[in-house]
Amino acid sequence: MKDMFGSPGSVSGLMLRIGQCVCAAASIGWMVSASGFSSYTAFWYHSTFSANYLIASMGLQVLWSFGLACLDVYALRIKKDLQNAVLVSLFVVGDWVTATLSLAAACSSAGIVVLYARDLHFCTNSKMHLPCSRFEISIAMAFVTWFFIAISSHVMFWLLASA
Amino acid sequence: MKDMFGSPGSVSGLMLRIGQCVCAAASIGWMVSASGFSSYTAFWYHSTFSANYLIASMGLQVLWSFGLACLDVYALRIKKDLQNAVLVSLFVVGDWVTATLSLAAACSSAGIVVLYARDLHFCTNSKMHLPCSRFEISIAMAFVTWFFIAISSHVMFWLLASA
Repeated sequence: MKDMFGSPGSVSGLMLRIGQCVCAAASIGWMVSASGFSSYTAFWYHSTFSANYLIASMGLQVLWSFGLACLDVYALRIKKDLQNAVLVSLFVVGDWVTATLSLAAACSSAGIVVLYARDLHFCTNSKMHLPCSRFEISIAMAFVTWFFIAISSHVMFWLLASA
Repeated sequence: MKDMFGSPGSVSGLMLRIGQCVCAAASIGWMVSASGFSSYTAFWYHSTFSANYLIASMGLQVLWSFGLACLDVYALRIKKDLQNAVLVSLFVVGDWVTATLSLAAACSSAGIVVLYARDLHFCTNSKMHLPCSRFEISIAMAFVTWFFIAISSHVMFWLLASA
């Protein structure tokens, strides 16, 4: 297997994993801070399902990326080659599942925020006190996380197919 | 390049393309029928952005899949081999873009329908007359479309990488 950008056990791969971890953690942080911010907890409850799904999906992403980052550090330290077919297949499946979940979570939350902001005008209604900007930052972070994990999953799939 | 399931210019590839076309068209049909069904047009307007995005994304999917289905039929009739690197790269990019758009559209609409049904209880409110079941069928069709296009895009990527 070739030594390409973002392959497992390389410095670029480690950077990608750290980027995924940091962005997913930031997304969780902004979403959790938004839930504490709202004084209209009864209303906040309405968007609970989607927010919880985003937090769960980003939590899974943090665990997965952190695990692989640790594996990359280990491989870099003892100069071990991680690119065998079984391991790369495992990375492909895990990356693909977490990438799909991240995109799904980001899009479903984005759909609801667009509904609030553009169609229902909840964000500009000063009575609501909905922290829309926090939702938006959290969702933007989720999209960045998805972008990084999409790169990783494509690189893994390429490595597996060209082996 | 190998002759595998769903490769361009094969019968299985043609079947996949037709499946994408049919499911995307069904998704558009159910969503359009839902918009005519609702008597509460003022309320319906609220979910306009997401519904329009689903329809636009599925429309793009129909065009793309129909074009590739025609190309498959042409290749099958004159027994031409479509598997050269330039053409497959083009298919990979197109499939990947339409797959991402389909998943994004399906998830953002699903997020809103879940918000209506579970959190706001709009679907069980008989005064609203919201055709939630039509939305749900339309979104399910969009997910099936995404599933088919995801298979196609992975096969294309595999063909490109293993060439």
